[in-house]
Amino acid sequence: MKAITLVAATLLIAGAAQAQKKNVTPGEIVAAAPADAWRAISPDELLVMDLANGGRAIIQLAPQFAPVHVANIQALARSGYWTPANIYRVQDNYVTQWGLNDSEKPLPAGVVAKPPAEYTRALQGLSIKPLGYPDPYAPGAGFADGWPIAYSPSEGWANLAHCYASVGVGRDLSPDTGMGGELYTIIGHATRHLDRNIAVVGRVIEGMDKLSALPRGTGPLGAYEDPKQYVPIASVRLASELPEAERPRFEYMNTGSPAFAEYLRVRANRKDDFYIRPAGGVDLCNVNVPVRRKPSGERG
Amino acid sequence: MKAITLVAATLLIAGAAQAQKKNVTPGEIVAAAPADAWRAISPDELLVMDLANGGRAIIQLAPQFAPVHVANIQALARSGYWTPANIYRVQDNYVTQWGLNDSEKPLPAGVVAKPPAEYTRALQGLSIKPLGYPDPYAPGAGFADGWPIAYSPSEGWANLAHCYASVGVGRDLSPDTGMGGELYTIIGHATRHLDRNIAVVGRVIEGMDKLSALPRGTGPLGAYEDPKQYVPIASVRLASELPEAERPRFEYMNTGSPAFAEYLRVRANRKDDFYIRPAGGVDLCNVNVPVRRKPSGERG
Repeated sequence: MKAITLVAATLLIAGAAQAQKKNVTPGEIVAAAPADAWRAISPDELLVMDLANGGRAIIQLAPQFAPVHVANIQALARSGYWTPANIYRVQDNYVTQWGLNDSEKPLPAGVVAKPPAEYTRALQGLSIKPLGYPDPYAPGAGFADGWPIAYSPSEGWANLAHCYASVGVGRDLSPDTGMGGELYTIIGHATRHLDRNIAVVGRVIEGMDKLSALPRGTGPLGAYEDPKQYVPIASVRLASELPEAERPRFEYMNTGSPAFAEYLRVRANRKDDFYIRPAGGVDLCNVNVPVRRKPSGERG
Repeated sequence: MKAITLVAATLLIAGAAQAQKKNVTPGEIVAAAPADAWRAISPDELLVMDLANGGRAIIQLAPQFAPVHVANIQALARSGYWTPANIYRVQDNYVTQWGLNDSEKPLPAGVVAKPPAEYTRALQGLSIKPLGYPDPYAPGAGFADGWPIAYSPSEGWANLAHCYASVGVGRDLSPDTGMGGELYTIIGHATRHLDRNIAVVGRVIEGMDKLSALPRGTGPLGAYEDPKQYVPIASVRLASELPEAERPRFEYMNTGSPAFAEYLRVRANRKDDFYIRPAGGVDLCNVNVPVRRKPSGERG
């Protein structure tokens, strides 16, 4: 592996002072963002999925975009619905999928068997930070409440975008929307063609590699052909169900904050030492809203 | 896993005749494309990478975009430069990287130690099929000679885009461009911000899962911290070096063909049975130029 050469490193130090402003990296902006640029994630909106192999993936839910589906998922988690269940599909450059459907296990009380088509929501009520660059999938693209969205001002809708690590609800052919028992996450290039065709309910915010680095299935659509290949799920719980001391605590960057605006600007104009030509643009799913463990010492 | 219900399947059959035109899938267009919509890939432009674990990844080279870098890679392969070498970096939603650099092994004869910055090439001479939708990274986006490209008509440049499975040349800080001994492939969302900052030399066309499903490295930038984690490379050869009977034979869809135009149209307007709302657009890296094994019986 290449190491940065001594000459380059020396130049880097010499030029650091004058380059301080223009060569800042996205990571430096995140590290320097003030406390009020961050918002805590409610423990009711964190899904903690423990795999039998010891891996853990943590999913942030987005009730503001798919309230009935998210309420279903919360009820399923509280009932222990996914114990046991499996990861049964891993399709390269597409999805990892897991869970159970209503033909495999009766639905617990409170779960809506046929949720409405929460593929979009009203644009009204969202405070949007526009991406500022054209989007091939929708008239508008940007960020609302920490999430990447596409939208139409003239038609009044907004949808949570299918980006890397987005979590959506598996379904059969329309008008079925899926009740939330089968979930998938995107493990390759953003599948934006699924936008407005599926209920997106959240995103994996930690442990994504436990889902993205699995062997690809060799059956149709990446299904594992032999049940021995299944990756068993030990439990799926809301963080709020865990003992207080064991709860993971996360926060996401407020996409209405000045820190996010600066982060977005730099993601679109990389000019730190590795880069020669800043792109002057960025696509919605290459921005990656910062999400992190809450710094220790902070609570709430 | 859900199966399509009997009712839905029946409707599907009943509606097939009338829906034949409007509901065609991208896969059906590829399957129906005439022989003259395909172009054979030269065995000198196929890099066959065999891993010690039995996996094989095959890379199509793009000499028309980075001729000096590709000639280097061909010379390195012919000299057995990468026997032995390792995959030493796997960063989630970013890259898998492998190879050796000139401090690790002397360069074989004919390899240009300091290639020019082949990050772009002249737009002139390329026959372009425009994407037809806006691109946030460049004034123009489309396809030339089977490859996804971005370009500027006013400035006269074109670059091979960083999409999923694209292969680029690792480098240190500029003005180093990398001599081709260290290569990487994109294993997540398209890293278009690297466009025009790195020499892109090809794409993985088979066995991508052997590179994308590897455990993620836990060191800085996804480096494997313990050399025991390295994935050893057994050999990297050009297909033209293999005995005739053992050569893999591939072809890609001519992006100037009517079949590709139809494929592109449908990728942007999915309206087969699963989809409710066609996007009416698609991004450059979500098109995926069809590449396939040459049907048996055909030669050349």
